[in-house]
Amino acid sequence: MRRPGRRPRAAHPDRRVSVAAVDLDVAALHPAVDDPALNSMNFLNEVAQQYPDAVSFAAGRPYEEFFSVDAVHRHLETFRRHLADDLGQSPDQIRRTLLQYGRTKGIVHHLIARHLVVDERLTVDPESIVVTVGCQEAMFLVLRALRAGPRDVLLAVTPTYVGLTGAARLVDLPVWPVTDGPAGIDLTDLRDQLRRARAEGLRPRACYLMPDFANPSGVSMDLDRRRRLLDLAAEEELLLIEDNPYGLFPAGDADRLPTLKALDTRRRVIYLGSFAKTVLPGARVGYVVADQRVAGSDGGVGPLADQLAKIKSMVTVNTSPIAQAVIGGALLAHDCSLVAANRRERAAYARNLRHLVDGLARRFPAGGPVRWNVPAGGFFVVVTVPFGVDDALLHRSAREHGVLWTPMAHFYADGAPVPALRLSVSAVTPAQIDLGLDRLAALLTAELAARAAPA
Amino acid sequence: MRRPGRRPRAAHPDRRVSVAAVDLDVAALHPAVDDPALNSMNFLNEVAQQYPDAVSFAAGRPYEEFFSVDAVHRHLETFRRHLADDLGQSPDQIRRTLLQYGRTKGIVHHLIARHLVVDERLTVDPESIVVTVGCQEAMFLVLRALRAGPRDVLLAVTPTYVGLTGAARLVDLPVWPVTDGPAGIDLTDLRDQLRRARAEGLRPRACYLMPDFANPSGVSMDLDRRRRLLDLAAEEELLLIEDNPYGLFPAGDADRLPTLKALDTRRRVIYLGSFAKTVLPGARVGYVVADQRVAGSDGGVGPLADQLAKIKSMVTVNTSPIAQAVIGGALLAHDCSLVAANRRERAAYARNLRHLVDGLARRFPAGGPVRWNVPAGGFFVVVTVPFGVDDALLHRSAREHGVLWTPMAHFYADGAPVPALRLSVSAVTPAQIDLGLDRLAALLTAELAARAAPA
Repeated sequence: MRRPGRRPRAAHPDRRVSVAAVDLDVAALHPAVDDPALNSMNFLNEVAQQYPDAVSFAAGRPYEEFFSVDAVHRHLETFRRHLADDLGQSPDQIRRTLLQYGRTKGIVHHLIARHLVVDERLTVDPESIVVTVGCQEAMFLVLRALRAGPRDVLLAVTPTYVGLTGAARLVDLPVWPVTDGPAGIDLTDLRDQLRRARAEGLRPRACYLMPDFANPSGVSMDLDRRRRLLDLAAEEELLLIEDNPYGLFPAGDADRLPTLKALDTRRRVIYLGSFAKTVLPGARVGYVVADQRVAGSDGGVGPLADQLAKIKSMVTVNTSPIAQAVIGGALLAHDCSLVAANRRERAAYARNLRHLVDGLARRFPAGGPVRWNVPAGGFFVVVTVPFGVDDALLHRSAREHGVLWTPMAHFYADGAPVPALRLSVSAVTPAQIDLGLDRLAALLTAELAARAAPA
Repeated sequence: MRRPGRRPRAAHPDRRVSVAAVDLDVAALHPAVDDPALNSMNFLNEVAQQYPDAVSFAAGRPYEEFFSVDAVHRHLETFRRHLADDLGQSPDQIRRTLLQYGRTKGIVHHLIARHLVVDERLTVDPESIVVTVGCQEAMFLVLRALRAGPRDVLLAVTPTYVGLTGAARLVDLPVWPVTDGPAGIDLTDLRDQLRRARAEGLRPRACYLMPDFANPSGVSMDLDRRRRLLDLAAEEELLLIEDNPYGLFPAGDADRLPTLKALDTRRRVIYLGSFAKTVLPGARVGYVVADQRVAGSDGGVGPLADQLAKIKSMVTVNTSPIAQAVIGGALLAHDCSLVAANRRERAAYARNLRHLVDGLARRFPAGGPVRWNVPAGGFFVVVTVPFGVDDALLHRSAREHGVLWTPMAHFYADGAPVPALRLSVSAVTPAQIDLGLDRLAALLTAELAARAAPA
C-alpha cells in the first residue's frame, strides 16, 4: 500500500535501478518514443538546463520583455465583454461559454477569420477553422487525418521543423524530403520526388513547408515561386500544408508577401496558424484553416475542418475556452490586427536580426570559411562552416565557451552531422548577441585552427 | 485570389454541392473519422442542439450553477502568489512560468501529488505525473505509447466510455471487450479474454476500466474485487488503466473505497485523473500518473511518464500554463483537497441521484418491465427496457416527448441496439428531473403499449 509518510518508490536517488525493477522496455512502446525527432527537443532542453548561464542562440521562444500576467486578466475581461456586448450572451451563457465543455472547433474562430482578413487579406469561412492546442495540435490533426494507410507519405521541405517530423512519426507517416534552396522549395525536385514516390507505389498526401522566414533555414519564397508552387499543386493534385508562425516578423520595410493560402483559388492549401509568437506561447492556442471539401460516406459534403474536429474530439475534446478567451481578448484589443499588436516585437526582432548579421560580418571575414544567410525576417540565421557540426561540438561550445545554438543536423531525418548551425535571435538582447558572437567566434576559430593543424 | 469583399467560397448556403466541387473523399482519410465511436458524440450533440428545450438526461457535463468567471481570475492570482511566496519565483520567473513555453510534464504536478495524498491517500512521485489537456489527452498518450504494433489490443470493460474507444481508433488499437457485471468487471471473463487474445497471437497491452461510478454503467467495484483484479494483473503481467473522473462524488455517507492505484504495490496501474468535474471543464486540464519503470535503449530507467511526455511534446507541446494555473489556484484555495472544494457539488449530485431513482420508483412499478440500477454515486443510471433502444427512439423521444438521454448502444463496439438507456443527473435540477421523468414515462409507456398491441 502506498500511503503518505512512506517514501515514494520512484523518488529513488539512482534512476538506474536493477533490471528486476523494470516494468517495460522501450522497445515495447510505439517506436516514436525512441525516435531522434522526439528526442531532439529533449536533448536540446537538457543542454540548455545544464548551462543556464550560457548565451542562448538556441531558444526559439519569443521575446518575453513585453509579456504581462496582468494582460491575461485584461484579455479575459475584454473577451467577456465581447460575448456580452457583441454577441449578446447573458451572464449564464458567458459562464457556459468560458467554463463548460464547448464547441469542438473553438469559440474564437470568427476573430481569427477577421484577423486573416485584416492582416493577410485572406477571406475564409469561419466554419473552416479549427482552433487547436497550439499549432502543434493543428499539425498533428492534419497528419492523423491524411495518414489513411501504409502507402501514404508526406513530402516536406528539408531541413524541416522538428515538430512536423515528430508528429509524422506519431502517426506512422514517413517524411519524404524535398530539397530546399536559398529561395525556398526546389520545384523541380518537388515534382521529381512526387513522381518517384508515386512510381514506388506510394501516395504523397501533402507537402509541408514554411514559405515565410522558415524554421530552421530563415529562407522565404518569392511571389513567383509561390504562384508556380500552387500551379504545380493543382496539376499534381497535391495538398500543401503551409505553416506560418513567423510571417508577421519581416525585418525590413518591404511589403509582406501574400501567404500561399491568400493566393490559393483551388483549395490546395491547408493553412496552419500560431499565436505563440504573436500573442503568448502560454495560451497554447493555434489553428488550422481546412476548407477542402470532403465527401462523406453519407453523401454530404463539408469542410475538412469538420473531419479534423472529429479527430480533435478524441485527442483534446476542445481547446480550453479560457485560453481561447485570452487570445480572443488580445485580438479584440487591436481590432484583430496582430500587425498592430506586434509593432514593438517586430522592431525588436528586426533589430536583433540586423545586429546578429552585422556582428557576424564584423567577426568573420568575407570570403572566409564561415558563411551565413541573411534572412528577410523571422527568428533564424544559418551559419555554414567547413566541418560537420554535431552534438559533441554543441556540448563543447556550452562548456568551454558559454554559448548555445542548434546543430542543423537536428532538422534532417538521418541526424548525420551537417556543416551548419542555426542561430536564433528571438530570446536575446543586443548585448547578449555581442557576447554570444564573441564566444561563437572563439569556438569556431579554435575549431578551424584545430582542423588546420597537422594531425 | 481570396480577398475581402469577395464572398468566401465555403460560405455557400448549400453544403451539398456537386461532386465536381469535392476535393477529398472521406475514404481517403484515416478510417477513424468515419467510425461510429467518433461520430457518436457528434450525433448526440446534434440531437441536443436540435431540441434545445428538451430536458436533458443526456449531457454528462458538470453542474454549472457554482461556476464563476471571477473565480478564474482569483485562482490565477492564487497560483501567482504560490509561485512567488512558496516557490520563491521572481516576477520575471513568474511571467516566464505562466506565459512562455514550459515544462512538458506540467507545472502543477506537485499540487496534484498533494491532492492525491490528501483525498486518495495515494503517494506518487510528482515526476511520474504528466499534466494533460484534459483526461482525454492522457488517455490518448497512454494508448499511443502502448500501441507499438499490429498485434497489440486493448482490453476494456464493456459498455465503455466512448472517448476511450475513439482514442483507441485513432491509434489503430483494437478494443477487445470484457464483460461487466453489477459489481464491476467480470474477473473470470477478463482472464478468459486475455488468454483467448494471446492464443490468437495478440498482445493485450492493458485493460481499461472505471472502478468508481463508471460511465456509462454507474457501477462500482467492491474492495475485494479490486484486490483480486490487482492480483490477476500481477499474475498475468497486465497493465490496468484506471480512469477516475467521478470518484469524488459518492451519493451516500459511506467511506469512499481506495482507488486501484492506492492499492497498487506492483506498479500495474496507470491512473487517469480529470479536473473537469471537480473544478472546471473549461480549463481542459487532466493528468496521468505513470510510474511504471521503462528501460530505455540507452540502458537508463525512468518512469513511463517521461515516455508519455515525449509523445505529448509532439501532440500539444505542453498544457497551457494559464489553464494549469487556474487549476493550481483552485487546488491551493482548499489545501489541495477537492473533497473540501466539492462539498456543494457532491451534495447536489447525491440529491439528484436520489431524486432520479426515487422518481423512477414512483413512475414504474417494481417487478415491471422497466428496471434500473441504483449506483452508489456519480452521474449515471442505466434504465433497462424490454426492447432495443436505437437512435430513432431517441429522436422520437426528443421530438414527441421533449426528453433526451443516451442509447446504451453508443457504448458498445458494434453499435447494435441494446435494451437500455443511460440517464445522467449532472446537468439537471430536481424540478427538471421530475419533468423529464414524466416525459420519459410517457415515452416508455407508449412504446410498451405499441409493442403489446397486436400487430
